[in-house]
Amino acid sequence: MDILLSRKSVRSYKPDMISDEDINYILKAAMASPTAGNAREWHFMVIKNKKTHEEIMKIHTAAQMIKNAPAAIIVCAEPNVEKFPGFWPQDAGAATQNILLAATAKGIGSVWCGIYPREERVAKFQELLNIPENIVPVSMIVLGYEDGDTPLKERWEPSKIKYETWA
Amino acid sequence: MDILLSRKSVRSYKPDMISDEDINYILKAAMASPTAGNAREWHFMVIKNKKTHEEIMKIHTAAQMIKNAPAAIIVCAEPNVEKFPGFWPQDAGAATQNILLAATAKGIGSVWCGIYPREERVAKFQELLNIPENIVPVSMIVLGYEDGDTPLKERWEPSKIKYETWA
Repeated sequence: MDILLSRKSVRSYKPDMISDEDINYILKAAMASPTAGNAREWHFMVIKNKKTHEEIMKIHTAAQMIKNAPAAIIVCAEPNVEKFPGFWPQDAGAATQNILLAATAKGIGSVWCGIYPREERVAKFQELLNIPENIVPVSMIVLGYEDGDTPLKERWEPSKIKYETWA
Repeated sequence: MDILLSRKSVRSYKPDMISDEDINYILKAAMASPTAGNAREWHFMVIKNKKTHEEIMKIHTAAQMIKNAPAAIIVCAEPNVEKFPGFWPQDAGAATQNILLAATAKGIGSVWCGIYPREERVAKFQELLNIPENIVPVSMIVLGYEDGDTPLKERWEPSKIKYETWA
């Protein structure tokens, strides 16, 4: 729970590389997430190449923090292999959350950058990374050791809870 | 990480009630999840009433396990309050995942039942629970102490990982 509550969006990174062991730990967490009908319609791309990061900065204006980050993981979905159609964006959200939490558990900062449903971004990521048309890049998680100390946000809002019925 | 990897779908429950403290712990975890632009476009409904559970069994064929479960949380989204449109299904998926993990951390079993994007289910849940039209019930998480010991699923698939480029 400490990890759940200490998860935050980190946007300033030290250039230090993340170990392959830690990357695998994070991917293992990602694949521990549930999918509708256990279809496991996700794929994960690990991007460490700085030239690719520079290209990503050109196609995703809100992902400039990748400049100094050592790595990113892109969560992709393959809608055609779903057992129950249409749940893949939620499933990708759950996998993304597990990535954020596993990184936090390892002391690695992270931030969730949205790709889908922005069609132009989806197409540009597909082109840059040779992703086939039937695979949708859904989210990108930038990873790295935090440079600084972003404060935690308080998100507890009891007014968002309803009991038994809405009204 | 132990919690991340021990999360599983539980479909058989003891009738023992979950404490309000534990429900609040789980809701706090749900609201610690990130949302696009920090819009926090989610709402959470806590349903303990057994008569409502019986009605839910009628409108969601895949949620029969709620029969013996003491509680359920429904994750809803309010798309109109989003800062960046269209990310709410992913955000709801992340919140749902936090609910599953927080329950696991408390020794409480859980299973994710999909509602959205099944239009008929969405409409029936809206009607049953007096949910306004602009609010989408996205997922339902059934909660309770496990009756039995469902084995864990192995989900680690290195073939789902690509490095630097897809092909």
